[in-house]
Amino acid sequence: MTSPSHSPVIGVFDSGFGGLTVLRSLLARMPAARFAFIGDTARLPYGSKSRRTIARYAAESAQFLTQEQGAEFLVIACNTASALALDDIKQAVSVPVLGVIEPGAAAAKASSTTGDVLVIATDATVQSHAYAAACQAHGLRALEKACPLLVPLVEEGWTSHDVTRNVIRIYLNELLADAHAKGMTPDTLVLGCTHYPLLRPLIEEAVPAGMRVIDSADSTADAAAQQFKSAQSGDGKIEPATSAQELSTTDPETNLVRCFATDSVEKFARLGSRFLGRPTGPVTLVDLGG
Amino acid sequence: MTSPSHSPVIGVFDSGFGGLTVLRSLLARMPAARFAFIGDTARLPYGSKSRRTIARYAAESAQFLTQEQGAEFLVIACNTASALALDDIKQAVSVPVLGVIEPGAAAAKASSTTGDVLVIATDATVQSHAYAAACQAHGLRALEKACPLLVPLVEEGWTSHDVTRNVIRIYLNELLADAHAKGMTPDTLVLGCTHYPLLRPLIEEAVPAGMRVIDSADSTADAAAQQFKSAQSGDGKIEPATSAQELSTTDPETNLVRCFATDSVEKFARLGSRFLGRPTGPVTLVDLGG
Repeated sequence: MTSPSHSPVIGVFDSGFGGLTVLRSLLARMPAARFAFIGDTARLPYGSKSRRTIARYAAESAQFLTQEQGAEFLVIACNTASALALDDIKQAVSVPVLGVIEPGAAAAKASSTTGDVLVIATDATVQSHAYAAACQAHGLRALEKACPLLVPLVEEGWTSHDVTRNVIRIYLNELLADAHAKGMTPDTLVLGCTHYPLLRPLIEEAVPAGMRVIDSADSTADAAAQQFKSAQSGDGKIEPATSAQELSTTDPETNLVRCFATDSVEKFARLGSRFLGRPTGPVTLVDLGG
Repeated sequence: MTSPSHSPVIGVFDSGFGGLTVLRSLLARMPAARFAFIGDTARLPYGSKSRRTIARYAAESAQFLTQEQGAEFLVIACNTASALALDDIKQAVSVPVLGVIEPGAAAAKASSTTGDVLVIATDATVQSHAYAAACQAHGLRALEKACPLLVPLVEEGWTSHDVTRNVIRIYLNELLADAHAKGMTPDTLVLGCTHYPLLRPLIEEAVPAGMRVIDSADSTADAAAQQFKSAQSGDGKIEPATSAQELSTTDPETNLVRCFATDSVEKFARLGSRFLGRPTGPVTLVDLGG
């Protein structure tokens, strides 16, 4: 499964294209690695589905990345799948797997001085209480809130729209009121959905002065870069292409990233560029049988 | 495949539970029939998926209703599937199949005096231009607009919220401006999505004075009742239970409607009651293999 060149492949998975915010952060930190990204767009959104279904879908995408694309390290750039199906994914493949929950919780720990943090995410992520559990393991108290309108608002392109500003204020005011009613003094807000980094400016406007906003995409990319480096030095098998010479033969806009989707590749390419912050390049349609 | 009792089964299909607004209208018009409803919730929303994928999914649900539940008449209570996959569904089963597009267009024809109508729907329904084509066949000019935020707003329960009122005004003002720019004088608005009947009060507030709002759920139920009656008298095979005596042995809250979902039956039962206007009764989980 090792790729033919010296440059290893890192597989990145999401139910849609929101995970491209994680890939964007990964590219900034690991410019020498190659990436295979799959968005299971035929079956999105995972946020409204059951754990059983999400686990089955996510394992199929993970196997595609390792078996078909030769990925030697997997980043689950999907909060819902990380929350509900990380163990199932780890069982389905034989490479290291990193989700987005634990890095987000670790970054919240580093940020918070009061020990109280807030988390906004999709319904399924919140119902799993995966962030609360991960935060608790770091000695934090976390209060989570589902914000189901934010993903469709991002996908509508209303990322700086007054309606979105209003919806964010409503959600955050409800969450803050709930936190205060519980006697909490939160100083950190975790963005527990890969769509939310596109709303970061509006969210930072809406939080109380002094509250820090943690982007789990950035936290995950930091953790992935570190773990990948450890995995490399650990068994010596994974050899990333770090020389400028080797990279100079590739086009950074297309060659280092291969994108796959299970449906609507045109929509993926069109919307995906907003999340990736650059063109996705050609997107290949994949049938995972669902 | 005929059901054991004299009361025939009408199968109703949607990608989610929005189609329960059609079932609600059907129940009001055909109180003696029995209904099997399936919501393909594991794979919703269809609105963002390709024609190929939608056709495959819809055919599987249609076959479940006819083969497993003995449905002798199918109502496709899903605008996206009706727009993109009605022919595929008809090919997949051997019973009469009615979609929601044609009844909506026929009702628009009956309503409009100017011959210009507006249609609001999901992205996939609009991209199919199925309403425009059906309206054109009736001699109408139709202008369609995708309103992708309305479904999540309904599912969030914000059916009388100021944010929703604002979003509806934005969408309708854009649509009206576009219509006027095209020299149209629309007098009828078709709700081309089964979620939208829950927003009807806010939509009626937002349309210009004198504009009539057509609910395709009602139009479809009217057409289904008529076609079903014709199918009955046509071959004499379908014998609905119309006697009060036969019906008196059943509990109208549960026995006449059987609901199935491909995921999250609790969510289906919880949200579905809003659309059905009464409790859904027990919801059975079905695996369609996707």
